[in-house]
Amino acid sequence: MTKMDAGESWLDLAAKKRASLGNSIPLEWQIPADLVPPETQDDVTTFPAASGWFTDNELAITGLSAVELLAKLASGSLTSVAVTSAFCKRAAAAHQLTNCLSEIFFDKALETARRLDEHFAQTGKPLGPLHGLPISLKDCFNLVGIDSTVGLTASIGKPATEDAAIAKLLRSLGAVFYVKTNVPTSMMIAETVNNIFGRTLNPKNRRLTCGGSSGGEAALILFGGSMLGVGTDLGGSLRIPAACTGIFALRPSYGRFPAGGFRGGLQGQETVEPVIGPLARSLNDIEAFSKAVVSTQPWRSDPKSLPIPWREPADLLPPAALKIGVLWHDGVVLPTPPVTRALRIVVEKLQAAGHTIINWVVGNEHACGLSILGRTFVADGGDSVRVELEQTGEPWRPELEYCADFEEMGCAELWQMHLERNAFRQRYLDKWNEHGLDALLCPTTPFSSVEHGKFRHIGYTGVFNVLDYSCVSFPSGVFVDSALDVPLAEGGESTLLSESCVAIHEGYNPDAAHGMPISLQLVARKLEEERVIAMCKVVMDDIA
Amino acid sequence: MTKMDAGESWLDLAAKKRASLGNSIPLEWQIPADLVPPETQDDVTTFPAASGWFTDNELAITGLSAVELLAKLASGSLTSVAVTSAFCKRAAAAHQLTNCLSEIFFDKALETARRLDEHFAQTGKPLGPLHGLPISLKDCFNLVGIDSTVGLTASIGKPATEDAAIAKLLRSLGAVFYVKTNVPTSMMIAETVNNIFGRTLNPKNRRLTCGGSSGGEAALILFGGSMLGVGTDLGGSLRIPAACTGIFALRPSYGRFPAGGFRGGLQGQETVEPVIGPLARSLNDIEAFSKAVVSTQPWRSDPKSLPIPWREPADLLPPAALKIGVLWHDGVVLPTPPVTRALRIVVEKLQAAGHTIINWVVGNEHACGLSILGRTFVADGGDSVRVELEQTGEPWRPELEYCADFEEMGCAELWQMHLERNAFRQRYLDKWNEHGLDALLCPTTPFSSVEHGKFRHIGYTGVFNVLDYSCVSFPSGVFVDSALDVPLAEGGESTLLSESCVAIHEGYNPDAAHGMPISLQLVARKLEEERVIAMCKVVMDDIA
Repeated sequence: MTKMDAGESWLDLAAKKRASLGNSIPLEWQIPADLVPPETQDDVTTFPAASGWFTDNELAITGLSAVELLAKLASGSLTSVAVTSAFCKRAAAAHQLTNCLSEIFFDKALETARRLDEHFAQTGKPLGPLHGLPISLKDCFNLVGIDSTVGLTASIGKPATEDAAIAKLLRSLGAVFYVKTNVPTSMMIAETVNNIFGRTLNPKNRRLTCGGSSGGEAALILFGGSMLGVGTDLGGSLRIPAACTGIFALRPSYGRFPAGGFRGGLQGQETVEPVIGPLARSLNDIEAFSKAVVSTQPWRSDPKSLPIPWREPADLLPPAALKIGVLWHDGVVLPTPPVTRALRIVVEKLQAAGHTIINWVVGNEHACGLSILGRTFVADGGDSVRVELEQTGEPWRPELEYCADFEEMGCAELWQMHLERNAFRQRYLDKWNEHGLDALLCPTTPFSSVEHGKFRHIGYTGVFNVLDYSCVSFPSGVFVDSALDVPLAEGGESTLLSESCVAIHEGYNPDAAHGMPISLQLVARKLEEERVIAMCKVVMDDIA
Repeated sequence: MTKMDAGESWLDLAAKKRASLGNSIPLEWQIPADLVPPETQDDVTTFPAASGWFTDNELAITGLSAVELLAKLASGSLTSVAVTSAFCKRAAAAHQLTNCLSEIFFDKALETARRLDEHFAQTGKPLGPLHGLPISLKDCFNLVGIDSTVGLTASIGKPATEDAAIAKLLRSLGAVFYVKTNVPTSMMIAETVNNIFGRTLNPKNRRLTCGGSSGGEAALILFGGSMLGVGTDLGGSLRIPAACTGIFALRPSYGRFPAGGFRGGLQGQETVEPVIGPLARSLNDIEAFSKAVVSTQPWRSDPKSLPIPWREPADLLPPAALKIGVLWHDGVVLPTPPVTRALRIVVEKLQAAGHTIINWVVGNEHACGLSILGRTFVADGGDSVRVELEQTGEPWRPELEYCADFEEMGCAELWQMHLERNAFRQRYLDKWNEHGLDALLCPTTPFSSVEHGKFRHIGYTGVFNVLDYSCVSFPSGVFVDSALDVPLAEGGESTLLSESCVAIHEGYNPDAAHGMPISLQLVARKLEEERVIAMCKVVMDDIA
């Protein structure tokens, strides 16, 4: 690591980096001043269609799914340059309205697209199953020549010298990279805010969070600046942003997708393994991405990947109805009223469709899982973050200050915690087997989305990281209705389960969340990615 | 944990436990005094056939392989009681001559065998693919009602309350448990010696070690007291004993066989995962065991198991010749002369059979892998062992004293070491891919076997634990010949690579090792168990 120039404060470094990011948007893709929506406009997802700034062709292209785009790219009816340009422009707009990007490299993207178009012109064939498709990447994925700051000023101006494993793989399949997306400091906050780039806003309601840590991805995708992105998940970092924006995310089990060469928030931490996964507006796109990645046999070149080919989901589903457990609450935090209402509506539809629903009543299991995750996050006594901050004198963000209060854990205690985690995993699996579950249906977070700074409780996602189960966050089709989703009555409040639960319900503001999509989570066993996607399709069909 | 009775020293505890073990052999299976070979008799593998103490039927049964026995048990031409009795008797003899057992429960075994025979009589069918087969277990596998002391006096008289996952699984397939086998203290020594049961001897030459930590298993199997046993491997604990006794062992990658409920030496340690695997005199038995275990889909009930079915080895082999890298030495320790000679002979035969052989020249890779393993062993500053020893005042064994000298590692340093290990794994795999290897052929240890107390250097096995590759140790068909395998000449000595290398070659005694089988190791990628077995069959055929 090089030392910063004497006298260059973290504030200077951050300001320069922000300026450089802004300048990397070409003039033609800077929104004309007269078209920029007022800061008081909450919902900017309407901007692309309503502003008149996009051509019909650009809107048509950026409105397609990845599967649709790939078909047109593979047949030659769309060029990669046309597709990439349209997404670059829409991503530029997304950034100007929601602050969702951390790195912009449209030139490189268009150069790649040109080469792919040439390949197609010369051979008449796509380069691979992702030929010409722009894919957005979370900031943590290394790309040669580009920073991976993960919001830390000490990492500014230290471009990566090697692509992340997933980036190499996607490139080899024909993908085009054009942006990296914003994350919270060290990816350890469930909203997206850091001392370099500031805060990413939810495009559907800019007063609300887009979640974190893959929040830049989620905001970009919801806005249409990407149709497919790649994020990571250690405690919910794929699913929480997907839920806050109403898109899909797959949290695969560890080893299914290659995890080499990405920058983790707690590098080398393995008690709960971070995983990488896709976010998209379409479940078919999630599936297409997953199948394409696994079909390359990543285990041949990535030591962390497992030799499990993509299996035909049809073979993995029960012949008739699914047996689904419903986790109404996790024993720690009651979901806010809209989430519980969405869960009820979905359950009723699934019952009507003939699925067997059982109440998945938990005692302290989820509290136990969450405790393990929490201790894991601070096992190094905050060293992973502190070392970075101290290089430039950057202050702790208030959301992370608690990390600094913990003493470093020793190996003997860590090993004991592993035994505790193993016993927890065994108990949970035994219970799963006793009930013969196919899947578990539960909240992704206690919220639809929530005002900036008010996100709490990653338990609904994080416990499944500790268990390493396959999870999809999906939009339930239900939206917050402030008239229906009133705060818990006093009787309801008497059932509040914890300090977090009280804080969440005291802070719950139905007016703020009104109109937001409500997402839920479908969970399958470990390494059942095909199956959880297939089951989610069944659920989506039955609740449509 | 209960405290020991006041005044009961670790010596008393150990003596009582030994006495109880001895008394658990029924009189009829105690070798008559006049038949006991003199202590000066080195090779006791001749005892069963030569002593006249075994019936022809007992010799015939205990001479069969597991595959052969299973066929006879499944057709009803042998009863489980007959088979189990024969192995109990021969195991009793093995123990009296080599001190290879830690727990003996013949009564329970015969009761299980009777129930299995009844099942067969009533249904005309075997209970499962391992119907009626006696299988020996390393001491670390929990069995209800039986101690798992792993050689620690503090664990005497604390019987397990639940079977290990692999034990449950094997029982469900019809296996019969009859003994557990001796291990070194906490399984952290590469020979088999502890303060409770003392030292296990190599049946082929009692002046030599049987290796460790699954040394009790290897001694028992070589003697014929078991045809199939289950051990564990963290740094070579399956392969080193297999090599010292000239039998086969499979070290599978982590997650292939269920690892729940066995007592590890460093419980909760996960930087290098301990794995469980089979030992046998026949490679077909290793395969039959592996296939039977995986066919139960252990991942349904064991959180650590991976959902990878047993694949047809034929599909996994290249159509024609194999490309095999040969590791003549690991850059740390030159093998002793007989091992290098065996390697040369095997390589010549493989070349003659048309396989492509390349020299796998290493720089500091293996030293790096070994260093990671070494630091992992002492990351808790010896706490795992110390906590046990302090309960009874049992002294550190001299082989383990070094552990007590290390400071406990903190999580921040551990996480850095994980990054180092990940980079090591990536480099090794990249090199493997560059050369397009199918397998690597190398020593299992620097020795054929070696005099008690002189085993050093677990690098040839341990590095593949760090890499988590699939390995088989197999007998090369070559035996030590003191006339041929002379110590390195002075010129040779000038090439010695390390302090360990010097100590090993200075201590090398061709006369002591004369006549011992020499084993080698075949290594495949991670999670290629079927493939490494299939390739080992090819190798065995071509060197026969």
